[in-house]
Amino acid sequence: MSAGALDPAAERRCRESFARQAFVLHLGGAMEEIAPGRAVLRLPFRPELAQQHGFFHAGALTTLADTAAGYAAFTLMPEDGAVLTVEFKMNLLRPGRGAAAIARAEVLKPGRTLMTVRADVFCAAENGAEQLAATMLATMMCVQGRADVPPG
Amino acid sequence: MSAGALDPAAERRCRESFARQAFVLHLGGAMEEIAPGRAVLRLPFRPELAQQHGFFHAGALTTLADTAAGYAAFTLMPEDGAVLTVEFKMNLLRPGRGAAAIARAEVLKPGRTLMTVRADVFCAAENGAEQLAATMLATMMCVQGRADVPPG
Amino acid sequence: MSAGALDPAAERRCRESFARQAFVLHLGGAMEEIAPGRAVLRLPFRPELAQQHGFFHAGALTTLADTAAGYAAFTLMPEDGAVLTVEFKMNLLRPGRGAAAIARAEVLKPGRTLMTVRADVFCAAENGAEQLAATMLATMMCVQGRADVPPG
Amino acid sequence: MSAGALDPAAERRCRESFARQAFVLHLGGAMEEIAPGRAVLRLPFRPELAQQHGFFHAGALTTLADTAAGYAAFTLMPEDGAVLTVEFKMNLLRPGRGAAAIARAEVLKPGRTLMTVRADVFCAAENGAEQLAATMLATMMCVQGRADVPPG
Repeated sequence: MSAGALDPAAERRCRESFARQAFVLHLGGAMEEIAPGRAVLRLPFRPELAQQHGFFHAGALTTLADTAAGYAAFTLMPEDGAVLTVEFKMNLLRPGRGAAAIARAEVLKPGRTLMTVRADVFCAAENGAEQLAATMLATMMCVQGRADVPPG
Repeated sequence: MSAGALDPAAERRCRESFARQAFVLHLGGAMEEIAPGRAVLRLPFRPELAQQHGFFHAGALTTLADTAAGYAAFTLMPEDGAVLTVEFKMNLLRPGRGAAAIARAEVLKPGRTLMTVRADVFCAAENGAEQLAATMLATMMCVQGRADVPPG
Repeated sequence: MSAGALDPAAERRCRESFARQAFVLHLGGAMEEIAPGRAVLRLPFRPELAQQHGFFHAGALTTLADTAAGYAAFTLMPEDGAVLTVEFKMNLLRPGRGAAAIARAEVLKPGRTLMTVRADVFCAAENGAEQLAATMLATMMCVQGRADVPPG
Repeated sequence: MSAGALDPAAERRCRESFARQAFVLHLGGAMEEIAPGRAVLRLPFRPELAQQHGFFHAGALTTLADTAAGYAAFTLMPEDGAVLTVEFKMNLLRPGRGAAAIARAEVLKPGRTLMTVRADVFCAAENGAEQLAATMLATMMCVQGRADVPPG
């Protein structure tokens, strides 16, 4: 979508907002990269992230993908904007098996109000080899001036 | 979709499978009801389930909805079947605010291999008043005879 | 979603807009009902609407569902608003076989900018018996003041 | 997904099946390319393909994308297989304005029963300049041995 680095103020807004992402942090997720229109998040596997067969639960992968998609969009929003997820679709391509999940999100189409974002989720083996485990197509909304939704 | 109660063996299979749902249990989710083609799950709010604005994270609501949808489908599967999520779409209708989230899933169309399932997610205030917060449309798959995917 | 009849001016706006729906009209679609937050469209089967197996093409059913969803949303928009489809997901539940397809759309959540709409598509046999053939979950947007998108 | 050309028998199956696509042909769609796991379809604009604002109707773009996605999947199926659309999600990124729409589909994950396919829809101006107008994420199913669904 975009090239180059995020300006320092925008990067700070992203990092500060991410630091308030209680759920993602509780799961162990970390922001690896953030750039204009792009974000990469990583989530190490832990037994408590599994579903009944021992793989990453689709909900954990979705949490990661949705959050990456949200921050990819957030990088392109004005500084008083807040990002809300309108909707997403997630296709699970393979069982989510591996030492970590990595979500790479990219804004396909920025807009003043809405942004369409794609996020691919890869599962990485101990040796670093990655396989595409899931893909998300999401719509993010920029909200401004709503008292119940603070910026971030 | 269906009426009546689940037969005892099917209910036991569902309960035993749910008892292996490490991620959902870790979040505090509980199975409230299970019936042929239907499942209801509940998730009390906790600060660690929140996103940056203090509402339920979409990923937590999705985890609940996906799991409810999976068990709604599982009730209609043969006893050696395992349920895998093929894909879902989730629309977030309102900020997920409340004392608990409740996912009510119903199979719209059962099939031998694929089942289409709808799951509505409500957020309940302390006084029990509920509002529709999100709705999911999902495709579940019945897998049989795959060594890497045990029944359940 | 809503009860009662549409006020005459809103109904006229819907009917006038629908009369400009070249594609839907070309396929033979007709608006059967329009009410606040709801719309019903009908499309008689014709051989040129079929896919390779002789059933309604998913694209024809989607056209009907998307249009019904759009007008369900449009009934709740201000008079200078135009409706644009942001996105939709469609699950095909059964082969689209029958003498006609009927799309019934209902706004699940109205909003000033975005509306979430569900549309069910039924296929009706010659004797009128209906079966649910597909279901759509859609996001519609109200656009105002865009010179390239006239009201309607 | 895949490289190289389709073997002649598979290409003939695709072309013969496409020749029975009454709806797509009625709209004026043509198959431009077919390769293992990939398909490209083109649809010239005509006034009867428009919605109320004069752009390509989302349903026409969806028909093109769904059909391209179906044939991308079909190239990877056994010769007695038939392809059915399970579901798709479509995000409309820009008004569908232009002299033609082009759908480019690619299988993201092949499977014996299910295939996940992405299809991007571009609108091309008279001078050939293309813009991404929509993107689809779809699930296709391979059906074998169903008397009511002939191969193709």
